[in-house]
Amino acid sequence: MNTVKPLSMLSKALNKPVIVELKGNKGFRGTLDGFDPHMNLVLKNAEELNSGEVTQKVELAIVRGDNVIYISP
Amino acid sequence: MNTVKPLSMLSKALNKPVIVELKGNKGFRGTLDGFDPHMNLVLKNAEELNSGEVTQKVELAIVRGDNVIYISP
Amino acid sequence: MNTVKPLSMLSKALNKPVIVELKGNKGFRGTLDGFDPHMNLVLKNAEELNSGEVTQKVELAIVRGDNVIYISP
Amino acid sequence: MNTVKPLSMLSKALNKPVIVELKGNKGFRGTLDGFDPHMNLVLKNAEELNSGEVTQKVELAIVRGDNVIYISP
Amino acid sequence: MNTVKPLSMLSKALNKPVIVELKGNKGFRGTLDGFDPHMNLVLKNAEELNSGEVTQKVELAIVRGDNVIYISP
Amino acid sequence: MNTVKPLSMLSKALNKPVIVELKGNKGFRGTLDGFDPHMNLVLKNAEELNSGEVTQKVELAIVRGDNVIYISP
Amino acid sequence: MNTVKPLSMLSKALNKPVIVELKGNKGFRGTLDGFDPHMNLVLKNAEELNSGEVTQKVELAIVRGDNVIYISP
Repeated sequence: MNTVKPLSMLSKALNKPVIVELKGNKGFRGTLDGFDPHMNLVLKNAEELNSGEVTQKVELAIVRGDNVIYISP
Repeated sequence: MNTVKPLSMLSKALNKPVIVELKGNKGFRGTLDGFDPHMNLVLKNAEELNSGEVTQKVELAIVRGDNVIYISP
Repeated sequence: MNTVKPLSMLSKALNKPVIVELKGNKGFRGTLDGFDPHMNLVLKNAEELNSGEVTQKVELAIVRGDNVIYISP
Repeated sequence: MNTVKPLSMLSKALNKPVIVELKGNKGFRGTLDGFDPHMNLVLKNAEELNSGEVTQKVELAIVRGDNVIYISP
Repeated sequence: MNTVKPLSMLSKALNKPVIVELKGNKGFRGTLDGFDPHMNLVLKNAEELNSGEVTQKVELAIVRGDNVIYISP
Repeated sequence: MNTVKPLSMLSKALNKPVIVELKGNKGFRGTLDGFDPHMNLVLKNAEELNSGEVTQKVELAIVRGDNVIYISP
Repeated sequence: MNTVKPLSMLSKALNKPVIVELKGNKGFRGTLDGFDPHMNLVLKNAEELNSGEVTQKVELAIVRGDNVIYISP
């Protein structure tokens, strides 16, 4: 199958701003600094969101992949 | 068994519009641009849905497969 | 053990109408067109059910197996 | 360890009536026609139960093992 | 590490009365007749408990391990 | 990486009193008598806690690791 | 892919203060003393948080990785 793999698509989003939607109405907006095959993510200069509202800003967040619903570059 | 495999059926839906129903009354309508065996998906020009209502439009979404209930081409 | 394996029983239901009960009071009625060992399913000409009510009809649905409670041919 | 393995105990329940308690207050009463190591089950002539009440009868049900709480022959 | 392994401790509880606490305020009191590395259990002459109350007695129950919170001999 | 591994840290807590916080507002206070890589635990002379209140005392509890939030020696 | 891996980023946070957000509105603030590939964590001199409020202080906590939402150094 000659298809766009989700993980290589993530790879193209590196160093770019992304929206990360997490389970439990949580999320992040920040720069994608890294990831692994579990979709564990490294986000830089990120805003944490709760129900769409910014709740805090963090320089760095390492997100465990099983919380991710989707990532939008 | 000479049966239609779910993943090869997904393969036929590539580059076509799909509805993706996710857990938690969430979903997407968009073009299926890629997937992998975990049902991680790449969607293009997608509308995010919440309880059937469009909540936002995104150019690209990488959806983690464990959120998927079903995909309908 | 000389026992009927669940997956080979599914195999006998191919191309036949099935009821699929999913977690979260969801379900499908349709023709089983394919499956794999995770119980990912391909359903054709399917009615989606919510709490027993038909909510929409889809020509094709690829259901992720971890949502399945049971399949009844 | 010389112990009774759960799966071989299931094997002894083949072709016998069983009660299957599932997550979400669901269950089945029927004849155990097959199973596999995930505790995926094949039930014949089964009554589906919801909070202990019979909700429907099915000739055959293939139950995904991860829903099972316990099986009682 | 020279430590008491949980599964060998279970092995010592064989043929003895145990309390099994399950998720969802459920549980069993009965004789441990077998188990496997997933903590799937075989219980004999068991009382099923719901929020601490006996709801029924079963001669035999095969409990799927992922429901177990703890087992107390 | 020359880092303190969580499981070897658990190993240092053997035969010492620990607090075990479990999902669902449950927990245990007792002596850590054993564990395995899944964080299945053997606790001795343990008090079971519900929302911080002692609900019963057990001589021995074998806790399934997937319930554990954290262990504090 | 020449990307920052989440686990090597964790490695840089060793012996530094971190915020750990857990599922169920729980969390920790403490010094990261160790971790493994499951994101099981060793925290030292940690404050346990519930909905953002400090509920207790612990010298050491071994956190099971599947509870982690994110770690912020």
